[in-house]
Amino acid sequence: MIKVRPILFVLGLLLCILAAAMVLPAIIDVADNNPGWQVFVASALMTFFIGGLLVVAAYEDTAVQLGIKEGFLLTTLCWLLLTAFSAVPFVGLGLTYTDAFFEAMSGLTTTGSSVLVGLDQLPRGILLWRALLQGVGGLGIIAMAIIILPFLRVGGMQLFHAESSDRSEKVMPRALELMMAIAGIYLILLLACISAYVFFGMTIFDAVCHALTTVSTAGFSTHDASFGFFQSPALEWVCIVFMISGALPFVVYIKAARGQASAVWGDTQVRGFILFLISIWAIVTFWLVATRDISVMEALRAAAFNVTSIITTTGYSTEDFTKWGTFAVGLFFILFFFGGCSGSTTGGIKIYRLQVAGMLTRSHFLHLISPNRVVTLVYSGRRLPDDVPFSVVAFLAIYMATIGVFTVVLSAMGLDFVTALSSATQAVGNVGPGLGDHVGPGGSFSSIPLAAKWVLSAAMLLGRLELFTVLVLLRPEFWRA
Amino acid sequence: MIKVRPILFVLGLLLCILAAAMVLPAIIDVADNNPGWQVFVASALMTFFIGGLLVVAAYEDTAVQLGIKEGFLLTTLCWLLLTAFSAVPFVGLGLTYTDAFFEAMSGLTTTGSSVLVGLDQLPRGILLWRALLQGVGGLGIIAMAIIILPFLRVGGMQLFHAESSDRSEKVMPRALELMMAIAGIYLILLLACISAYVFFGMTIFDAVCHALTTVSTAGFSTHDASFGFFQSPALEWVCIVFMISGALPFVVYIKAARGQASAVWGDTQVRGFILFLISIWAIVTFWLVATRDISVMEALRAAAFNVTSIITTTGYSTEDFTKWGTFAVGLFFILFFFGGCSGSTTGGIKIYRLQVAGMLTRSHFLHLISPNRVVTLVYSGRRLPDDVPFSVVAFLAIYMATIGVFTVVLSAMGLDFVTALSSATQAVGNVGPGLGDHVGPGGSFSSIPLAAKWVLSAAMLLGRLELFTVLVLLRPEFWRA
Repeated sequence: MIKVRPILFVLGLLLCILAAAMVLPAIIDVADNNPGWQVFVASALMTFFIGGLLVVAAYEDTAVQLGIKEGFLLTTLCWLLLTAFSAVPFVGLGLTYTDAFFEAMSGLTTTGSSVLVGLDQLPRGILLWRALLQGVGGLGIIAMAIIILPFLRVGGMQLFHAESSDRSEKVMPRALELMMAIAGIYLILLLACISAYVFFGMTIFDAVCHALTTVSTAGFSTHDASFGFFQSPALEWVCIVFMISGALPFVVYIKAARGQASAVWGDTQVRGFILFLISIWAIVTFWLVATRDISVMEALRAAAFNVTSIITTTGYSTEDFTKWGTFAVGLFFILFFFGGCSGSTTGGIKIYRLQVAGMLTRSHFLHLISPNRVVTLVYSGRRLPDDVPFSVVAFLAIYMATIGVFTVVLSAMGLDFVTALSSATQAVGNVGPGLGDHVGPGGSFSSIPLAAKWVLSAAMLLGRLELFTVLVLLRPEFWRA
Repeated sequence: MIKVRPILFVLGLLLCILAAAMVLPAIIDVADNNPGWQVFVASALMTFFIGGLLVVAAYEDTAVQLGIKEGFLLTTLCWLLLTAFSAVPFVGLGLTYTDAFFEAMSGLTTTGSSVLVGLDQLPRGILLWRALLQGVGGLGIIAMAIIILPFLRVGGMQLFHAESSDRSEKVMPRALELMMAIAGIYLILLLACISAYVFFGMTIFDAVCHALTTVSTAGFSTHDASFGFFQSPALEWVCIVFMISGALPFVVYIKAARGQASAVWGDTQVRGFILFLISIWAIVTFWLVATRDISVMEALRAAAFNVTSIITTTGYSTEDFTKWGTFAVGLFFILFFFGGCSGSTTGGIKIYRLQVAGMLTRSHFLHLISPNRVVTLVYSGRRLPDDVPFSVVAFLAIYMATIGVFTVVLSAMGLDFVTALSSATQAVGNVGPGLGDHVGPGGSFSSIPLAAKWVLSAAMLLGRLELFTVLVLLRPEFWRA
């Protein structure tokens, strides 16, 4: 039997925290003399009321250990319920609930696709709310990826089991302590990002909002022109640094904070990610210099910003890269699949899976050449646990199949091929922009059909929770005792 | 050390056979009083001379067993060399060698993409040559898939090892005997197809050419309008039947011929394939009836023909399905990935891999739900060999990665996103048509850049040889002793 009470209790607690977060935009709106504060206060009261009710009703005196099934159910319900309530303030703004849910899902999953246009004219309360959702979402994702997913053994995440049997690898023994460490590091990155943005000329409000969506590699901006609004090379480089910081594995930060600074560059995933990023920067810079009349430095900046934004699945833009010619379109579409490191705020397939897959492919080829050879698989200095290879490769296969299914469904709803395929791909990867006139970096998701918004919300959720966490709930076996 | 002499000997033999095949179009051209016969005779002499030279030079008195490395090298070289020589008659027709190589590769790999336009005006010799290439290619593929690939353990093909250790499953013990059986069945299917085409109104020439490209699920036609030229429901249904017959596993035919008729419907793959096909027919029929002003029977025929043509990777068309609305485009693109059964002439991922992947996914989910459960994997009544799951899933991952790489490369050559992605996908899957104005069912590959034709030729070869067979040659370890 699945234990429902502890799940409801945790959901209630999280709703109360969400309600508290709604107070911040209310304060901004009061300061701006904007009547929008009433929406936030009302939403906060409603959310707090329901959350509190759940907490009180589901409270149990005895300590309860959550099992694996409860873990899956809680993780998925968490994201669904928080999205449902986070959407309420958008409804107050005049959006339909569909649009509001889409925007909230895109926020909490740190995707960054938006149905809102005319951002520059929106009240500051709602802009802060969008940024807060992504900031909170980012923190939630890291906590989930480091604490919950390894325990659920989803998609090879067991590779990063913080409580490894190997004592020397034990980062910190207890979940709460780990959570505090993650939150601490996240906060430090946020504050550093805000300071740097302010130092290089952003207003404090823009700095806070953009830091919340940069460190979480999420991509909502307060301006329709996205990061291009600032027209500042310095700010763009700051942003590049902090997008990368959000894409690195937080476990490595924890190690570094505990004095193992060498852990950062020694990490196979960090090294692979940085080298990959720089190679793509180089290729795109070369392409831009070869095809456009700009200097190498301008090309490097445009390439570095937009490539980093896509690979880290942030989704800011300074220019519409789909105007850079066929090569850029093809390349950026493929980049939609990559993502950053495990235990970061990025979406996509993630570097460690690609590294493990690469390693497996190599060993498979060696095996084809010499069937009797035994190849030991070592990742980042550790022998690969037995169930990781299959988990990783199965993840890749299901990732592709999921995008295929969503593409067909979106096509059936009238989206043209490029829009359907690129929206499905970017949503599952939590990237933000797609390709084509509608959903490309220059477009908006407001024009796509109602049903497609629900479908894309589902795609974002699936991708965010590493597919298996949600899909496992669809198996009848899950619901049997 | 890789033994080169026996490889050269076999290549020489195959070239001599190819030279003999070139005599047939020469005869037709002589009969038609077309000077094109000289091209075929010259090509045949050159091919026979070089082939004969190889046979004589590489002949060894002692019987030589080919090892695994020789197997990989021979298979890839086979296809490359035969393509290089098969292209010669096209050059005689006035094509550049690039176009000729592309057309020959598309022929021998039974892809069906063409750079030729104005087919209806071409001499019959060259039309027969195109059809012969696909007919010969189809037979070669089946032989390779049944005899060679299981031995090389490529992409899960070991599942269909004809010489299984399980005696009751032993279809026939020796390769030559197996080859004769395959050729016999292939010939029977061809003759049946020709007879049916003639019976329902095709000229004998058209019937022969189309039978050669139907049973091989290849798709070259003798008319620019493809199968739509005939405007005959009866012929279309005949074609549907024989495309399906070419997409079934030939091992099952052999069993049926040996009296185990129940083997056909009892085969998991056959059943899965037929059910899948019929479901897609139903969906597309429903879509056509709902969106267009046609009767159910007309819709069923259009759906059945074009869906079967794409799923079996044949590539004939009676209509341009990209004009059927967004859903059809999205769906057909996804159908580019499927293919028919193992040991058939179809390309794509193939049904058994999808079935094995589905089974693995299910067991993975069960494992996620109850980590201690032991799931036994059984496919078509047999326990799945230990190395099959990983081979299959790795194949899927590399299949996708290959398409990704080709898409980026084609984009860099100036192909727009839809053309690049769809050409890469259809080429790796040996389907035939892509999407978009250039390479869609209504277009031609003649207009794409020269370099892209070479790239697509490579993609067709890779897909045809189940990726690993070619990719393994790129590993430095392959070339070490």
